[in-house]
Amino acid sequence: MKVYTKYVWFNTKEKREIVPMTHEAEIALAEAGVNEGFVLVSAMHITSSVFVNDYEHGLWEDIMTWLEKLAPARHDYKHHKTGEDNADAHLKRLLMGHQVILPITKGKLDLGQWEQLFYGEFDGQRNKRVIIKVFGE
Amino acid sequence: MKVYTKYVWFNTKEKREIVPMTHEAEIALAEAGVNEGFVLVSAMHITSSVFVNDYEHGLWEDIMTWLEKLAPARHDYKHHKTGEDNADAHLKRLLMGHQVILPITKGKLDLGQWEQLFYGEFDGQRNKRVIIKVFGE
Amino acid sequence: MKVYTKYVWFNTKEKREIVPMTHEAEIALAEAGVNEGFVLVSAMHITSSVFVNDYEHGLWEDIMTWLEKLAPARHDYKHHKTGEDNADAHLKRLLMGHQVILPITKGKLDLGQWEQLFYGEFDGQRNKRVIIKVFGE
Repeated sequence: MKVYTKYVWFNTKEKREIVPMTHEAEIALAEAGVNEGFVLVSAMHITSSVFVNDYEHGLWEDIMTWLEKLAPARHDYKHHKTGEDNADAHLKRLLMGHQVILPITKGKLDLGQWEQLFYGEFDGQRNKRVIIKVFGE
Repeated sequence: MKVYTKYVWFNTKEKREIVPMTHEAEIALAEAGVNEGFVLVSAMHITSSVFVNDYEHGLWEDIMTWLEKLAPARHDYKHHKTGEDNADAHLKRLLMGHQVILPITKGKLDLGQWEQLFYGEFDGQRNKRVIIKVFGE
Repeated sequence: MKVYTKYVWFNTKEKREIVPMTHEAEIALAEAGVNEGFVLVSAMHITSSVFVNDYEHGLWEDIMTWLEKLAPARHDYKHHKTGEDNADAHLKRLLMGHQVILPITKGKLDLGQWEQLFYGEFDGQRNKRVIIKVFGE
């Protein structure tokens, strides 16, 4: 079994941002040269997400509005007694998930027509890392 | 490492429906003939979910009622400016997750007593696909 | 490909509790002796969660408070017509996810600086099982 590992970095302009990253997974797959297998894409920071959904800006805004409603930024989280101010980002990331497995079939990412990979940033404007690990043969 | 791929299709009668699919994963496992490994089951449409929970109709209704509360169908999503009307289905699928890994031990799905696999449809009444990919030896 | 399987048990004092378990995954990795691969950690009960987030007690309290708001314990769930009383635990577990994949690189769990693994119990005070399965070479 081949295993290929790389790390990609994100430093978003906005504190909260959705960034397309299907291409990053495709590049890793090409570099790995795997025909049948899968790609693990996993956020290495605990206020970030990796998820699969639609490449549509309106929906990205809907997602952010919705996350703010379900897991609002507030002052009174207990986590903030440590000096942190980003408890909501931890909760948003829990809702959205932090990793996906993309199947590889016949040398390509085996995704549905509208499936696209995204990085979800909820406490950005600093360097954050995602691991991409390709497994297969 | 053996890799075996198949696709299963769902076309639900209802727009929103939970459909048991443990048996689909068991069939794929039998076809693959793997003794130790895992099965990736992943929705290929971005308004569908794949998840593990209880085989109990009352709970399925609870899940649907709850999802409607947390991610309600509404007209005013920005995504709907594209002509779509299913933003809530995208959000419901994000809450429920779109893929699971089922471990295989000694030739069988290694699930807890009550663990069952389900397909969750949030924008149905049309053909939608799930990939099942078995990895192992 | 090496595959190594073990099961760990939790019996929490509280009905709802977050229990650190990174060390359990590290032990399984050491026992498996894998250099490149991944660890699947998956709850085998459908009212429990496995997730990655911060080792910070205040945040754990925030998570529990937040889950109670989004998926409250209530009497009127349809699931309770079966005699069960834990529908909220099923919903909380759906929000938090029930499994993670931890990458292994150069013989170690390849986690970000703050990434820690947790078992989330939402209907505890009884024996519950988590499967840890290590794959790799």
